[in-house]
Amino acid sequence: MNTSFNYFIPTNIIFGAGRIKELATVTLPGTKALIVISSGTSMIRFGYLDKVVNALKEQKVEAVIFNKILPNPIVDHVMEGAKTARDNGCDFIIGLGGGSSIDSAKSIAIMVNNPGTYWDYIHGGTGKGKPVTEKVLPLIAIPTTAGTGTEADPWTVITNLETKEKIGFGIPPTFPVLAIVDPEMMLSVPAHLTAYQGMDAFFHAAEGYLANVHQPASDLFALSSVKLITENLPIAVKDGSNMEARTALAWASTQSGMVESTSSCISQHSMEHALSAFDPAVTHGAGLIMLSVAYFSFMAKKVPERFPALAEAMGVDVSKLPESERAMAFITALKKLIKDINCDGLNLNDYKLDKSQAGKLADNAMTAMGFLFTLDPYKMNKDEVVEIYESAFGA
Amino acid sequence: MNTSFNYFIPTNIIFGAGRIKELATVTLPGTKALIVISSGTSMIRFGYLDKVVNALKEQKVEAVIFNKILPNPIVDHVMEGAKTARDNGCDFIIGLGGGSSIDSAKSIAIMVNNPGTYWDYIHGGTGKGKPVTEKVLPLIAIPTTAGTGTEADPWTVITNLETKEKIGFGIPPTFPVLAIVDPEMMLSVPAHLTAYQGMDAFFHAAEGYLANVHQPASDLFALSSVKLITENLPIAVKDGSNMEARTALAWASTQSGMVESTSSCISQHSMEHALSAFDPAVTHGAGLIMLSVAYFSFMAKKVPERFPALAEAMGVDVSKLPESERAMAFITALKKLIKDINCDGLNLNDYKLDKSQAGKLADNAMTAMGFLFTLDPYKMNKDEVVEIYESAFGA
Repeated sequence: MNTSFNYFIPTNIIFGAGRIKELATVTLPGTKALIVISSGTSMIRFGYLDKVVNALKEQKVEAVIFNKILPNPIVDHVMEGAKTARDNGCDFIIGLGGGSSIDSAKSIAIMVNNPGTYWDYIHGGTGKGKPVTEKVLPLIAIPTTAGTGTEADPWTVITNLETKEKIGFGIPPTFPVLAIVDPEMMLSVPAHLTAYQGMDAFFHAAEGYLANVHQPASDLFALSSVKLITENLPIAVKDGSNMEARTALAWASTQSGMVESTSSCISQHSMEHALSAFDPAVTHGAGLIMLSVAYFSFMAKKVPERFPALAEAMGVDVSKLPESERAMAFITALKKLIKDINCDGLNLNDYKLDKSQAGKLADNAMTAMGFLFTLDPYKMNKDEVVEIYESAFGA
Repeated sequence: MNTSFNYFIPTNIIFGAGRIKELATVTLPGTKALIVISSGTSMIRFGYLDKVVNALKEQKVEAVIFNKILPNPIVDHVMEGAKTARDNGCDFIIGLGGGSSIDSAKSIAIMVNNPGTYWDYIHGGTGKGKPVTEKVLPLIAIPTTAGTGTEADPWTVITNLETKEKIGFGIPPTFPVLAIVDPEMMLSVPAHLTAYQGMDAFFHAAEGYLANVHQPASDLFALSSVKLITENLPIAVKDGSNMEARTALAWASTQSGMVESTSSCISQHSMEHALSAFDPAVTHGAGLIMLSVAYFSFMAKKVPERFPALAEAMGVDVSKLPESERAMAFITALKKLIKDINCDGLNLNDYKLDKSQAGKLADNAMTAMGFLFTLDPYKMNKDEVVEIYESAFGA
């Protein structure tokens, strides 16, 4: 076991079907909320926004709605959201929706009181790495997808359109003070997004298990999430109304966020961010799926040690396999899972991306999110990153 | 999986050999500390107190020492410690030592600003159950034993000598803000206390696994702690200088504290508190060991469902046993562990306790700490509690 580590997840996580109603009775961190939601219609259409606003009303807490967040959220909307909070005297932020809305809520919470522009505070890429000195507003996370895990970690990923960079950032105050994870608010996610989001959570877990900063608790969380997702994602993709599967996936996703708080994603996430930065039409989870077989096959050959446990968590009885096949058994199981959730048709060549860009993608990944490469179990050079991209594009 | 639960462990846990020195650089929650230690000499003799005081000095933080805590800490010392903190203008508390010192530090942290006497705030028994309304001072926990887990939970157990009650209490502000768990500061624990403390952690895990309020994360923590303790406690009892075993046990203990934060102890702990309340010479861990075979044998017969997983965590391959023997395999493994740590000679009849007191012990356990009985996987009546006590006393 790794014998030196920090464990810190200060978020109060309220988990369970129907528990959104407790927003009407829990102690809130302020008296006027900025509710951050996506530019789409689903938060309104499915009644989620009403549930939140009405619960706040019962506590006599006012709410201002900021509804501009894109699937790959951008700096401009962080700045605009922060201004809206400031202009309206909001003293806490609620992120309601998928990872994009909750991540934006975190970044907005930083920028309400801190001067300059958001990219001043970003580490890596063209970010200026300034310290956050002023108070970050307290944040409540209410996820309506099972994938991001952002409700249980400090991370927020924002895209800078000017520089084509998609970079993660987080500090202790960007942990939500409260997360309400209600699987009933995830029943409306369509099958293909259920699959993408579930696999995002899967890779948070798998990467966190492989990261060189793994710790005993992150190992437990990671293997448990891999198991829950392998067992339940095909069910939820087939039947989105299966409450048992939705509940298991909701917990797996939150638990994978806890992996990100106690271990870390590794370079697959940097490599995906480069894809979405080059073509914002690449959904994060789909991008990861399209990279994953090439990426993990490479890693399993270089550093096989931790792969058999991942295969076992996916239901493979590795004790029945010869030693030499135990690591690659994870790749076989991963391919099967991708097929079982109808994602085996995803292809990088169907996007505005081309194999000839592999070098530029590698440069972007290794610059904008270079830090994650230092957490890999095997230290890659640029040629190897290019090799993985090329392999992901196919022959 | 239990599908509705709260997860909340806000403590920042710094874990690892030699990491006590980080007390000199971490952000502290105040400028003047009350350091709470036991009435014994070990904190001074082994240099632990100096390490803490010197680290604080590097941060120009003053310290006042309160060194009166007994192995079963009492209300009078909580009140006296709170007065000492108040008189000296201390604005945070450090609990340094075993569970008794850290628990006392928590209770002192409550009583510095809250009026009346400590028992006014206790729920259960003769406690008055008043709400804690004034600020609880922030607390740093520095354990020098691997057993209590109090560094990662909000619980504090204090004895009222007048009423012969030993009752646990905890609220969100009694979570330590910071815990430094440094296994190098546990090397000095003698073999018999290593055994008692390790088994305390073992029972936190086993009870938390059985409790009807278990949740997915507490299950992971619990089975991991049971495994780590089964594998490492016999090694550390034989060779207290084995750093690998000490490190595994330190984490197992903290992790069992996390079980107590996310699930709960059950009635075995209430039943032990009654023993220590009747004869304070009964060390908590030893009391649990003397109850355990009778207690878990009873429970394994009534509600066998969760016992096979506990046996498996102890290294038993339950798949090779007939269904009917899988639950009791835990009892066999428990007896072996107790023998391997040289505790099979412990006997309730060697204390100022008598089988004829079984009824009174049951009354005390079910009154003072009656709440834990509601979390049992099987609801016992008084006759059954008496039966377990009598069985623990032997024929």
